[in-house]
Amino acid sequence: METNPCDKPKSGKSPIQSKVSRYTKPDDTIVSVNGIQIGGGSDIVIIAGPCAVESREQLFSTSRSVKSSGASILRGGAFKPRSSPYNFQGMGEEGLKLLSDIRKETGLPVVTEVMDTRQVELVASYADMLQIGSRNMQNYPLLKEVGLSKKPILLKRGMMATVEEFLMAAEYILSQGNDQIVLCERGIRTFETSTRNTLDLSAVPMLKKLTHLPVIVDPSHGTGLRWMVPPMAKAAIAVGTDGIIMEVHYNPEEALCDGYQSLSLDEFDLLMSDMKKIAKAIGREIAVPKVLLV
Amino acid sequence: METNPCDKPKSGKSPIQSKVSRYTKPDDTIVSVNGIQIGGGSDIVIIAGPCAVESREQLFSTSRSVKSSGASILRGGAFKPRSSPYNFQGMGEEGLKLLSDIRKETGLPVVTEVMDTRQVELVASYADMLQIGSRNMQNYPLLKEVGLSKKPILLKRGMMATVEEFLMAAEYILSQGNDQIVLCERGIRTFETSTRNTLDLSAVPMLKKLTHLPVIVDPSHGTGLRWMVPPMAKAAIAVGTDGIIMEVHYNPEEALCDGYQSLSLDEFDLLMSDMKKIAKAIGREIAVPKVLLV
Amino acid sequence: METNPCDKPKSGKSPIQSKVSRYTKPDDTIVSVNGIQIGGGSDIVIIAGPCAVESREQLFSTSRSVKSSGASILRGGAFKPRSSPYNFQGMGEEGLKLLSDIRKETGLPVVTEVMDTRQVELVASYADMLQIGSRNMQNYPLLKEVGLSKKPILLKRGMMATVEEFLMAAEYILSQGNDQIVLCERGIRTFETSTRNTLDLSAVPMLKKLTHLPVIVDPSHGTGLRWMVPPMAKAAIAVGTDGIIMEVHYNPEEALCDGYQSLSLDEFDLLMSDMKKIAKAIGREIAVPKVLLV
Amino acid sequence: METNPCDKPKSGKSPIQSKVSRYTKPDDTIVSVNGIQIGGGSDIVIIAGPCAVESREQLFSTSRSVKSSGASILRGGAFKPRSSPYNFQGMGEEGLKLLSDIRKETGLPVVTEVMDTRQVELVASYADMLQIGSRNMQNYPLLKEVGLSKKPILLKRGMMATVEEFLMAAEYILSQGNDQIVLCERGIRTFETSTRNTLDLSAVPMLKKLTHLPVIVDPSHGTGLRWMVPPMAKAAIAVGTDGIIMEVHYNPEEALCDGYQSLSLDEFDLLMSDMKKIAKAIGREIAVPKVLLV
Repeated sequence: METNPCDKPKSGKSPIQSKVSRYTKPDDTIVSVNGIQIGGGSDIVIIAGPCAVESREQLFSTSRSVKSSGASILRGGAFKPRSSPYNFQGMGEEGLKLLSDIRKETGLPVVTEVMDTRQVELVASYADMLQIGSRNMQNYPLLKEVGLSKKPILLKRGMMATVEEFLMAAEYILSQGNDQIVLCERGIRTFETSTRNTLDLSAVPMLKKLTHLPVIVDPSHGTGLRWMVPPMAKAAIAVGTDGIIMEVHYNPEEALCDGYQSLSLDEFDLLMSDMKKIAKAIGREIAVPKVLLV
Repeated sequence: METNPCDKPKSGKSPIQSKVSRYTKPDDTIVSVNGIQIGGGSDIVIIAGPCAVESREQLFSTSRSVKSSGASILRGGAFKPRSSPYNFQGMGEEGLKLLSDIRKETGLPVVTEVMDTRQVELVASYADMLQIGSRNMQNYPLLKEVGLSKKPILLKRGMMATVEEFLMAAEYILSQGNDQIVLCERGIRTFETSTRNTLDLSAVPMLKKLTHLPVIVDPSHGTGLRWMVPPMAKAAIAVGTDGIIMEVHYNPEEALCDGYQSLSLDEFDLLMSDMKKIAKAIGREIAVPKVLLV
Repeated sequence: METNPCDKPKSGKSPIQSKVSRYTKPDDTIVSVNGIQIGGGSDIVIIAGPCAVESREQLFSTSRSVKSSGASILRGGAFKPRSSPYNFQGMGEEGLKLLSDIRKETGLPVVTEVMDTRQVELVASYADMLQIGSRNMQNYPLLKEVGLSKKPILLKRGMMATVEEFLMAAEYILSQGNDQIVLCERGIRTFETSTRNTLDLSAVPMLKKLTHLPVIVDPSHGTGLRWMVPPMAKAAIAVGTDGIIMEVHYNPEEALCDGYQSLSLDEFDLLMSDMKKIAKAIGREIAVPKVLLV
Repeated sequence: METNPCDKPKSGKSPIQSKVSRYTKPDDTIVSVNGIQIGGGSDIVIIAGPCAVESREQLFSTSRSVKSSGASILRGGAFKPRSSPYNFQGMGEEGLKLLSDIRKETGLPVVTEVMDTRQVELVASYADMLQIGSRNMQNYPLLKEVGLSKKPILLKRGMMATVEEFLMAAEYILSQGNDQIVLCERGIRTFETSTRNTLDLSAVPMLKKLTHLPVIVDPSHGTGLRWMVPPMAKAAIAVGTDGIIMEVHYNPEEALCDGYQSLSLDEFDLLMSDMKKIAKAIGREIAVPKVLLV
């Protein structure tokens, strides 16, 4: 009922030219996360780390390991959106400091979620990339606020958002002047209950047709099942994703959050080598970690 | 995967006692909006007004008319969550002032949406009840912030939210000390495309079984079709709702927002008398507007 | 992607005139089930009986009781579509004979499901109305076969069918010359798991706008919960249904099929009187049973 | 609400041992379609051909070409389930004869849909494999009838069937003594409208975990978009499918059915070579066509 952002302008009309559309900008946008490039045919970027930052030991052990396996960007939540107010809500600023510390040690950029307009500045002072989670995909004040930030944004698809609504959420960010946006398919809600969500891999080619922004896939939230992450990650490479973000934990059984969908360090290492083979089969490469200048 | 807020405590365990559950508090909570009572077998409250505040004339004409037809509470959006950043975003604080003015003139309480943690104090200074919209049902910082407010809250079900998630969103507010919460079913997203959403009237008896909080229905967003609002409003009365919220506009054809689902003044007046008949048939009454002391 | 059956013919084109559409036939079709009229503003017809015919005693006790409470048509399954091949599959022809016997005793018409093209003639020889179940809504050979029958058809909406597909299924029957079709909304599949299905009451006004065929509602399958049947049945009356079909069992706890959603005899009796009040409130009546001439 | 076919028997109970479950039969079932093996780690089988048999020329041109590109089994519909009774319904027995003719010429087995219990014998007399379409996944009389046939069955997932219901549909066939069943994921219905369905690739690893039956994928119906078939077919290989079935037409623009989702002959040829590369990357091969003995 509202303008499709990617409709070709019809003759005789003067439509709003949405910035997110390939009609407006045919060439791929390349997002640079402190030197790591995503999109535009760049090498496929692997983002890995724990669901939530739980402790220095947990974050550092996990991060060192995923770096040595080949991850290019680290992830970890300091502010966690949880269904229950009585669940672990994240370590907050203390978690951000740990992320900053591991960033310095490893030289890898870090991405972490921001949930509140009042915290954008704080989170941006520690992280290289700001994540907008599924539940906030249509939190318009937050989208506008990160649109005013200079940081690249990882925008996750709402679990019941159409492709069109997803693009319009990106448009909110773009409309404020920030075009450094990576879209992330992370599973949609359907009637199926054997998986946590239904990972919609067809969203990858659809989004890449409609927009110039890079698109990555999150098979951890998309399936909710550790054993299903490897086959779906490989499928995501085959379908043409620009990157994969996944949850890895040095001790999944004891994770405070999402342990049942987190890979162990060994599982992640094995998957990295499998993903490289799929990437080669479609003529691409998995990105090699580059140490950034902090 | 997380604790059902309404599960009966199992023997031998020490579950989290969620405040939203009828097991914790068997008696109905009655929410008082500046003297207008909702829930607990009180008369059925009708909340009406335009989708968005557009101008003094539009707000005042519409509000005077719905008051004379019998609405007890006025509604109108000053901050509007729109799919596109290029759509009308609401009048902002100027809209809040108009709401405050019509509140003084009519003596009816007003409800309006708040979207940003930074604006809770501002909106609460003008309005009698704060609305959390569908898109923000899992915006946890916002839920916590309104939980700290002294105002009653109108919490709309997310268009993708299960009944359990809806209750846990209310729990976030309750956990901060505010139990003045009215739950609002407003349609869920399904595969059906002939209506804007699928209004899930079964959510009313389900929610009333699981929680002590009052439950109302929004047939305007639930259907997206003006001609379908009256039959669905009547069905909502029959199913046992504690109230109805609906969009009315003095000139729906020219509304800046949601005109296709807004009733005209005459349609609303006719519907009021039809709803009274259904209410009587189930042994209840439609609330009579009471002038509040400003 | 296929022609909407109810689209108004566009100028300059010669569209297929679907028989199901109000554009083709503006006046309501009244379906007559052995003298009981459904649709066209007739009194609201209540169809009741057990999910499955289990025994003479079960069928007769239940049927006598629902007749005395005011049901106009009896229901009972002889051929049951069950998710598992190891569940009770129905009594088959023996069940049909019992239905025929109770029909003679009570003088009320009976409706029962037919699942196989090879059984249409057999079932039609015993029953007054043939039911096409949800799972067979797009079983086109079966639709064509009952379209050739002279019996009225009760066509249930597929649990995954759009309103448009539902109408096209009716068109298959109409295309064979049988216009005695009653459409039945019985709940659609959504992500919500607290109810068995989501009863889509908005389908009633939508269908009545698009087609001339009568529309009834099944709150038993639509909710899957006995205690939720009464409020949803009342809501269905308020929304404008032409009838209600529901499961009643003389001993729900021991039913071989769907006991958890079947009303007891007393619950049904109470609901009948409540439904009469809602019907009056909208200016209609619940149909009084008429003894048919066998 | 009914027994999960794949639940591990709980101690102290005597559950129904469903035949479809890996608990009952841990080893993979290999389905043999006239010598072409599917499942159990066999080479990945490609099934291709037009949606519907339209004419000798159309079927023969298309079939010769897909054979030379490497398809192992031919497909083509003679009886077509169409949403509208006024759409092309298939060539019927004449179509079956053409399928039999191309089978003889090419030496490749053919699969075609059967929709009516009365036609199982007829279709089985022409075809090597019987397809049960999505709309008939819960047509239990038909499932039982093909369960009595000696032919291998291609069972497509209903467009709103859970994985559990899909397995129980297979159980209906197995319960009649026929274990030659290939399961086919073909897209489920969701709220997303940019694709025809949402191809649920996670169903492949889920099904392979729960059952011993082979699993294939249909990216043509799963996406409804020709340009999206190649990336999704490659993803299906990467995720571990035992085969792919897809629609190919020698002139998609003029197809009587599903032209917008059919590959041209050249597109299919290109995709075959791309799929081989993905197969190699996961240590498998695409099956080489073998001429059968007619």
